[in-house]
Amino acid sequence: MKIAILGSGFIARFYADTLAGQRRKDTLHVVYSRTEANAEKFATDYQVPHFFTDMAQAVNHPEVDVVIIALANHLHLAAIEICAQAHKHVLCTKPLGRTGEEARLMMELVEKAGIMGGYLEDLCYTPKFLKSLESVKNNSIGRVLWAKSREAHPGPHSDWFWDKEKSGGGAIIDLGCHCIEIARNFIGKGIKPVEVMCWAATQVHPIAAEDHAIGLVKYANGAIGQFEVSWCFRGGMDLRDEVMGTEGTIWLNSFLRTGFEMFSTGKGTGYVAEKTESNSGWLFPVGDEVHELGYSHMFTDMFEAIEHHREPSETFYDGYVVNCLIDAAYKSAASGSWEPVDLPVWRGTEAEAHSISYHDYDEHHYLIKEEILPDGNISRILKDKTTGVVSKISIVTSEV
Amino acid sequence: MKIAILGSGFIARFYADTLAGQRRKDTLHVVYSRTEANAEKFATDYQVPHFFTDMAQAVNHPEVDVVIIALANHLHLAAIEICAQAHKHVLCTKPLGRTGEEARLMMELVEKAGIMGGYLEDLCYTPKFLKSLESVKNNSIGRVLWAKSREAHPGPHSDWFWDKEKSGGGAIIDLGCHCIEIARNFIGKGIKPVEVMCWAATQVHPIAAEDHAIGLVKYANGAIGQFEVSWCFRGGMDLRDEVMGTEGTIWLNSFLRTGFEMFSTGKGTGYVAEKTESNSGWLFPVGDEVHELGYSHMFTDMFEAIEHHREPSETFYDGYVVNCLIDAAYKSAASGSWEPVDLPVWRGTEAEAHSISYHDYDEHHYLIKEEILPDGNISRILKDKTTGVVSKISIVTSEV
Amino acid sequence: MKIAILGSGFIARFYADTLAGQRRKDTLHVVYSRTEANAEKFATDYQVPHFFTDMAQAVNHPEVDVVIIALANHLHLAAIEICAQAHKHVLCTKPLGRTGEEARLMMELVEKAGIMGGYLEDLCYTPKFLKSLESVKNNSIGRVLWAKSREAHPGPHSDWFWDKEKSGGGAIIDLGCHCIEIARNFIGKGIKPVEVMCWAATQVHPIAAEDHAIGLVKYANGAIGQFEVSWCFRGGMDLRDEVMGTEGTIWLNSFLRTGFEMFSTGKGTGYVAEKTESNSGWLFPVGDEVHELGYSHMFTDMFEAIEHHREPSETFYDGYVVNCLIDAAYKSAASGSWEPVDLPVWRGTEAEAHSISYHDYDEHHYLIKEEILPDGNISRILKDKTTGVVSKISIVTSEV
Amino acid sequence: MKIAILGSGFIARFYADTLAGQRRKDTLHVVYSRTEANAEKFATDYQVPHFFTDMAQAVNHPEVDVVIIALANHLHLAAIEICAQAHKHVLCTKPLGRTGEEARLMMELVEKAGIMGGYLEDLCYTPKFLKSLESVKNNSIGRVLWAKSREAHPGPHSDWFWDKEKSGGGAIIDLGCHCIEIARNFIGKGIKPVEVMCWAATQVHPIAAEDHAIGLVKYANGAIGQFEVSWCFRGGMDLRDEVMGTEGTIWLNSFLRTGFEMFSTGKGTGYVAEKTESNSGWLFPVGDEVHELGYSHMFTDMFEAIEHHREPSETFYDGYVVNCLIDAAYKSAASGSWEPVDLPVWRGTEAEAHSISYHDYDEHHYLIKEEILPDGNISRILKDKTTGVVSKISIVTSEV
Repeated sequence: MKIAILGSGFIARFYADTLAGQRRKDTLHVVYSRTEANAEKFATDYQVPHFFTDMAQAVNHPEVDVVIIALANHLHLAAIEICAQAHKHVLCTKPLGRTGEEARLMMELVEKAGIMGGYLEDLCYTPKFLKSLESVKNNSIGRVLWAKSREAHPGPHSDWFWDKEKSGGGAIIDLGCHCIEIARNFIGKGIKPVEVMCWAATQVHPIAAEDHAIGLVKYANGAIGQFEVSWCFRGGMDLRDEVMGTEGTIWLNSFLRTGFEMFSTGKGTGYVAEKTESNSGWLFPVGDEVHELGYSHMFTDMFEAIEHHREPSETFYDGYVVNCLIDAAYKSAASGSWEPVDLPVWRGTEAEAHSISYHDYDEHHYLIKEEILPDGNISRILKDKTTGVVSKISIVTSEV
Repeated sequence: MKIAILGSGFIARFYADTLAGQRRKDTLHVVYSRTEANAEKFATDYQVPHFFTDMAQAVNHPEVDVVIIALANHLHLAAIEICAQAHKHVLCTKPLGRTGEEARLMMELVEKAGIMGGYLEDLCYTPKFLKSLESVKNNSIGRVLWAKSREAHPGPHSDWFWDKEKSGGGAIIDLGCHCIEIARNFIGKGIKPVEVMCWAATQVHPIAAEDHAIGLVKYANGAIGQFEVSWCFRGGMDLRDEVMGTEGTIWLNSFLRTGFEMFSTGKGTGYVAEKTESNSGWLFPVGDEVHELGYSHMFTDMFEAIEHHREPSETFYDGYVVNCLIDAAYKSAASGSWEPVDLPVWRGTEAEAHSISYHDYDEHHYLIKEEILPDGNISRILKDKTTGVVSKISIVTSEV
Repeated sequence: MKIAILGSGFIARFYADTLAGQRRKDTLHVVYSRTEANAEKFATDYQVPHFFTDMAQAVNHPEVDVVIIALANHLHLAAIEICAQAHKHVLCTKPLGRTGEEARLMMELVEKAGIMGGYLEDLCYTPKFLKSLESVKNNSIGRVLWAKSREAHPGPHSDWFWDKEKSGGGAIIDLGCHCIEIARNFIGKGIKPVEVMCWAATQVHPIAAEDHAIGLVKYANGAIGQFEVSWCFRGGMDLRDEVMGTEGTIWLNSFLRTGFEMFSTGKGTGYVAEKTESNSGWLFPVGDEVHELGYSHMFTDMFEAIEHHREPSETFYDGYVVNCLIDAAYKSAASGSWEPVDLPVWRGTEAEAHSISYHDYDEHHYLIKEEILPDGNISRILKDKTTGVVSKISIVTSEV
Repeated sequence: MKIAILGSGFIARFYADTLAGQRRKDTLHVVYSRTEANAEKFATDYQVPHFFTDMAQAVNHPEVDVVIIALANHLHLAAIEICAQAHKHVLCTKPLGRTGEEARLMMELVEKAGIMGGYLEDLCYTPKFLKSLESVKNNSIGRVLWAKSREAHPGPHSDWFWDKEKSGGGAIIDLGCHCIEIARNFIGKGIKPVEVMCWAATQVHPIAAEDHAIGLVKYANGAIGQFEVSWCFRGGMDLRDEVMGTEGTIWLNSFLRTGFEMFSTGKGTGYVAEKTESNSGWLFPVGDEVHELGYSHMFTDMFEAIEHHREPSETFYDGYVVNCLIDAAYKSAASGSWEPVDLPVWRGTEAEAHSISYHDYDEHHYLIKEEILPDGNISRILKDKTTGVVSKISIVTSEV
């Protein structure tokens, strides 16, 4: 597959590193950058045959099969319009839009044009995420009660991300988009998110947007998604997910604690590892960053989806849902109350309360809890179904 | 010091185990239980010279110096009244009351009686907590932005805790009291908590109270305390704290990941470890539970406070503040909005917004962020102080 | 690149899974298996166009560029003879031979034929290993003093591995080959290994070969390589490396603790994760096994080496050195003494003792150690260069 | 109990900190130091009523019940002679002697005098060790095959430890004494250690003794103890134990990874934690060091043993066995071969080979291994009891 990439900055280079590695068969064929020098340098660095400073020219290059948008948030819509006109499949970096409305327009553009709109939500493609999602779908942890995703680091690389007009917000739009979609996957994409509660503040940086936020998303089945995002974190990049189910638990750590630990006095002469805040002391590098962050599996899914005329796991529709949830988060951060999620297009099941089934202990009692105590005896807490009275029975186990 | 303990259940035994261990000089002298058999068994097990089924008799025993209340929540107030009348120092298990109002009455009782009211908030005495709190006070992580505490397990041992009337609530009153006070310590006890936002639900159990809740406490200086509590967690007891500061981070894991890991096929004949949900597979015991959970240092502080006529680290006043915060949490869970904290008695500083000081880059710019990129170059994001325009400068470092 | 794979068993499928994933451009074109049904099934499962039960036919297929040997150890030499005659590049699974002598013959065959002999030592290609090796080469941890590699699990999958005649030994030949080469890479491939000390025993299984062994390899510069291998380990696959340098430390955990943790009560209906010993309790899956175990980067290096007419990182020469070290290990296990390493072909530097440079404290003293004590004071241990007398000086730091 | 402590240096202060904490009832009553200023300072710091510069005077103080020896290794024997003459119970720091012969003399002195000789092997009293030892004794991990203990740090605090004449050696005598006794406990104190193999070298420091060593201890039942000790480790204090049993695994980390993690930019003004090599970057403090290192439980056991006229868990006899093993380690390091352990006094069972019982699969076959493969099928490796032929059967499980 021959690819045009729009943009030549930090994220474009991350994408290019992924595509250039491990002898992949899909190749970057065209690169666009507003600045000719940047386009040329990128083309040289990654051996891209063609470079342009005109976006439409890049997209319409006759050999291009698919377009990757690696531009600042405020430029996504215009780029997608060009792709739609050119009838070229398009993969757009996250977040899809700055608002749910903007994202909805993008979704409609690709759907009307009959092209594939792939949403480049890499953190929903990390190997750990994919395997744990499969476990959840296989019912290994029972009914999902809560899914938390946390992304925190000392702030983004690109200047435009610190400018609210261009990015659409702060840590929520930058990092929350990942966390919201991770939790939504674990809880179930067909389950309707109904309300959002969010706290946001600018605690450290001289910027207009929030640099720290915490939010809750309430789903129609009673499950809760939680996001914790910050540009104020010290110590590297904190990337963790947690899921609680009625029959199990999942804990993922994708960056700072992955089984790779180094200590350096700093007296050696060498460079140790990227993305750390220092070159001495205990350091926690990641083995193969593009792989651990999901880029490898993401592009594999996207290109195979195009070839097999199926939808990828993450589509423009998903990006649109995420943007609508972010809109509700910003509303809640301003109002101080739970805010309903406005989803003008919704393709999942309609809202319905979940029905909990309790554990019967016997005809007259529910089992609230059973526990093995330190002395080996068993304690059972029961509830009378009629009176509601809570009682406890202890079962003494004889020891060998 | 000679101690009377009121109660002979789960928590009373935990306290007694602590006091009996490591050749401590303070001794249990009197035990009270409503049920004579329980009182006698406890006295036998822990070699306590005297046992009573009358609370006042126990408290007023002439040799008793100090009383430990290890009773269900709804019995604390009556017990404290007896101690106040008897002019005996009193240490009360957590939570202090079922409401802020109840806790305020208890605080006033001990203060009027001139006795010490120690609040047995063990998790504010774990060795890890004490050392990290000292680091925070020494300014090792800068200004505290966020302090999160999480306690989750499959539900409490005692039946009365599942009964809302006796306990005063569910997971919030049982576990949230710990988490709220942990965060409050890290942020600073003199900083006024102003508002609380809380989500609470009964997701799994056939009970009236919440079995899962998440809450945020906003402090006058802009810092945020967060609590995550659940009786639905699977996998053991999840006890973790996290603190973000402008210059550092703290992560504490007090139970499931403490450097003690075992695998057992279950084919051996023996018992492996308490508090696990099974006896096979990977297990994560805790070395010395009463020590790791803070009981040792807690009682040391309490008895030394009495001897030296000083306040312990955790007083009835602290218990009262925690109860007021819990009241606000329940209000918020019902209203769906941030709720103000009602603190009729407040002894810290008055609310004031924190003033952030930005990093000057030069006369005309603030430094938003500095980062070392993977290629070794340095990227700096600046903000023009006058225009607000965000810009980026890259500094190419020559490599050896 | 078009590939013929010899063998259709466990390791052949692992290789095929790697090559089939992530849209790699090199493809399996031919498969050979002694048993037609197996060859056909493999061809079907992995969409391999051609299958054979005659090894020479498979290798000599005109479209085949490179041959992968995924056969039992006793079949490697014959397969390599066929590749050498056919002048087809050959990649051979680990260990290269059953003995140093057998490996030397293989090395000579490919070198005389002018084909590339790639040694498929996957654990020297894991992302964590590659990045830490780069750090070591960049001098981040100073002079390497010790490199330990440990591989332990409950025993191999294939029956022939339990048969000493076919495999050439037990846990040492199966797992020690990895560990020895990992340590050799960290210490430096050009540094001559001079002596080996090894303990080996059959502790659990009804087999002739060792199921547990520990060995030390002494290098000419004074560094020590250590291997710990076992087929008796319970709890999954233990895959850890540790390196001590004068200025730093590396700890790698490639399997059981990689930031992926699950708990399952086992009451859900689903399958949780491979390579665990159970489906309930705490489980530690690996995200993308073929990637984490180094297969992706290994094949990338091999094919690029062929295309660019350069040597891969792991060659038949490396496999031969490893086999010679294993020979010495078996000798030592039998003799109970350090045994010299017999390396009839050696292409590194000749043995020489390392020269240690001590830290001068002043003209008359070496600095043995400097330490900051708990009270903040500094303690320095010195040695008189002339008299050898050890002394201590304490420097009291004034505290703020 | 009233205690005389001999010595006022680093280890004496550690002991005193332990005894002064947590309101313990046993008190330091007398301190001896060769240097009056040191004795007086120690007495002041720890409120010890009496101090002496004459050892016999200290020991013979009429109110002293028990003596703690916290002196350099070469002074132990003389101190024990004084205690024996004074008929005062004596607790001696580790290692007991510099040689097995010296330790045997000490053991005989206390046994003849009828006093208790407690061996202050603190690392056999850490809470994690005690609980895991109990699990092993309860057969939770089956038959112990291997027990490894590792202690490594950048070198000891006291100057005399760097002087081979005073200490009796280097890292082996300093740290190996801990590791050897830890492994011996896990394997079983009654099982005879028969041979030792040891590598030792001076890799970094300008000293006569070894600063790095690795050793294996072979026990009569086929189990292996392993020690890894170093004064060259960078990154703090590495204190880890591992045990492999036929039915399970134990991993203990007592210092660097205990669930306490901090990051500090170093821009805060404060001190962070002791025993780290820096005050910035990721730091791993220990909550309550004297507790985690076993001092609390050690003194509890010692004083209770005296009161109840029983033996403590660690006696002079244990210290003597450890010294004999160290003697064998030094012999082996010199000879390059396994060396027999010379134990003139041995009180356990006599050497006998262990008998392994294999798993019968059916009348004619042993089961070598059973495994669940990634596809869910079960693979069983069998061995014919008569012919020794290894075969494999696969059981296809139908999936839901």
